[in-house]
Amino acid sequence: MRYLKPDPVPDELIERVLHAATCAPSPGNSQGWHFVVVDDPATKAPIAAAIEAAMAERVAAMPRPDRTMRLMLDGTAALIGALAQAPVIIFVTGGVVYPPAAPREQFTWSALYPASQNILLAARALGLGTTFTTLHMVAEPTVREVLGIPDDVRIAATIPLGWPAARFGPLRRTPVAEVAHRNHFTAAWPGAVGEAR
Amino acid sequence: MRYLKPDPVPDELIERVLHAATCAPSPGNSQGWHFVVVDDPATKAPIAAAIEAAMAERVAAMPRPDRTMRLMLDGTAALIGALAQAPVIIFVTGGVVYPPAAPREQFTWSALYPASQNILLAARALGLGTTFTTLHMVAEPTVREVLGIPDDVRIAATIPLGWPAARFGPLRRTPVAEVAHRNHFTAAWPGAVGEAR
Repeated sequence: MRYLKPDPVPDELIERVLHAATCAPSPGNSQGWHFVVVDDPATKAPIAAAIEAAMAERVAAMPRPDRTMRLMLDGTAALIGALAQAPVIIFVTGGVVYPPAAPREQFTWSALYPASQNILLAARALGLGTTFTTLHMVAEPTVREVLGIPDDVRIAATIPLGWPAARFGPLRRTPVAEVAHRNHFTAAWPGAVGEAR
Repeated sequence: MRYLKPDPVPDELIERVLHAATCAPSPGNSQGWHFVVVDDPATKAPIAAAIEAAMAERVAAMPRPDRTMRLMLDGTAALIGALAQAPVIIFVTGGVVYPPAAPREQFTWSALYPASQNILLAARALGLGTTFTTLHMVAEPTVREVLGIPDDVRIAATIPLGWPAARFGPLRRTPVAEVAHRNHFTAAWPGAVGEAR
C-alpha cells in the first residue's frame, strides 16, 4: 500500500504491530532487533528529503513497459514524494551477534527480515497499510545520523505505516509451479512423489 | 515446532504454503526465489547426515542455563537427530539481481527471508509444524551438491515441515517496550508523541 492518509495511527496499534514483529524467529532466539518508530515531523523531514533527493529522478526514469510496472513505479514515486506525510515510518534495525564467537551477517538478516514481514502482515490484519521498502539504503548516512543508529547496527527495512488511501490491490506473482522444485534445483514441481517414482 | 511426525504432508498443503511464500515482497517485485522441496528419503539422508555430523556435538555441548534454553536446545538436538525423518524439508533459495546494474546481497535476503517467514505462518495456519533454521550453513557444500544449487544462488533457510508431534508452545520474547524506540535509537517507547512534546 503505497498511498497513505496523513491521519495518525494510535500507539496501541503500533504496539500490536511491533509485538507481531517480536514474535519472529531469530538465531538461538537472540532477538537482536530494535524498532525505531518515527512520527515526529522534524525527524521524518530530513530523512524523507534525503531519500527523495536520491531516488525521485531515478524512479521517474525507470522504464514502465507494462501496466503492472507502471502501477508499481508510479506508486513508488508517490510514496517517495509523500514520505514525510506518512504518519509513521518504522525502521527495522539490529545486529544479531550469532554465533557469539564468529557472528555472520546472514544471521542478522535472518532475524530482521522475518520481523519486518510480520510487521506487514500484522498491519494488514488491522486494516493498516504498509510497504516493505529498503529506501534507507539510498540515504543511509542521513538516516543513521538523524536516528542515531550505532555503526554496528544494521538497518533492514524502512516501512511507512498508515491508514490506506487506496484499495489493497491483488498481488501479481509468478505461479508456484515455476519457482518450486522437487528434490533437486533442476527438477519441476510437483514432479515424482518420493517413493512413488 | 521441533518435533514432527513422520506422516506425509499432502502436496496440496505444500503448495498452499509455497503460495504464501510467493506472496512475500521483493525488490521491484523481482521474485528471485526458488523453493526446493525435499521429500525423497535418498535426498534427505545425506543432507541430514552432514548437518548432524557438523552440529550434534556442538548443540549437545551448548550451555543450558535455564529452562527456556534447555527446552530450545533439547528441541534443536532432537530436530537435528531426526531431520531425515521429517516428511518434508523446504530449502528457500534464490538470488535477487537488484538493482540490475549493481546487485547488493542485502536485497537477496530482503526477499528470501520474508518468503521464509510466510512459509512458517502459512504452515501454522494449516496446523503444520515448522522450524525456521539456517542449518544448511553448517553443511553448505553437501546441501549444494545434493540439491544442485548453482553457485550464484544463495540458500536462506532450511525449513523442516510436518505434522506436529508436540504442542505448539508459547513464545518467549523480550517485551516491545524494551526493543522499540520513538524517533531516536536512544529514546524509549512510547516516549513523547510527536507534536505533544
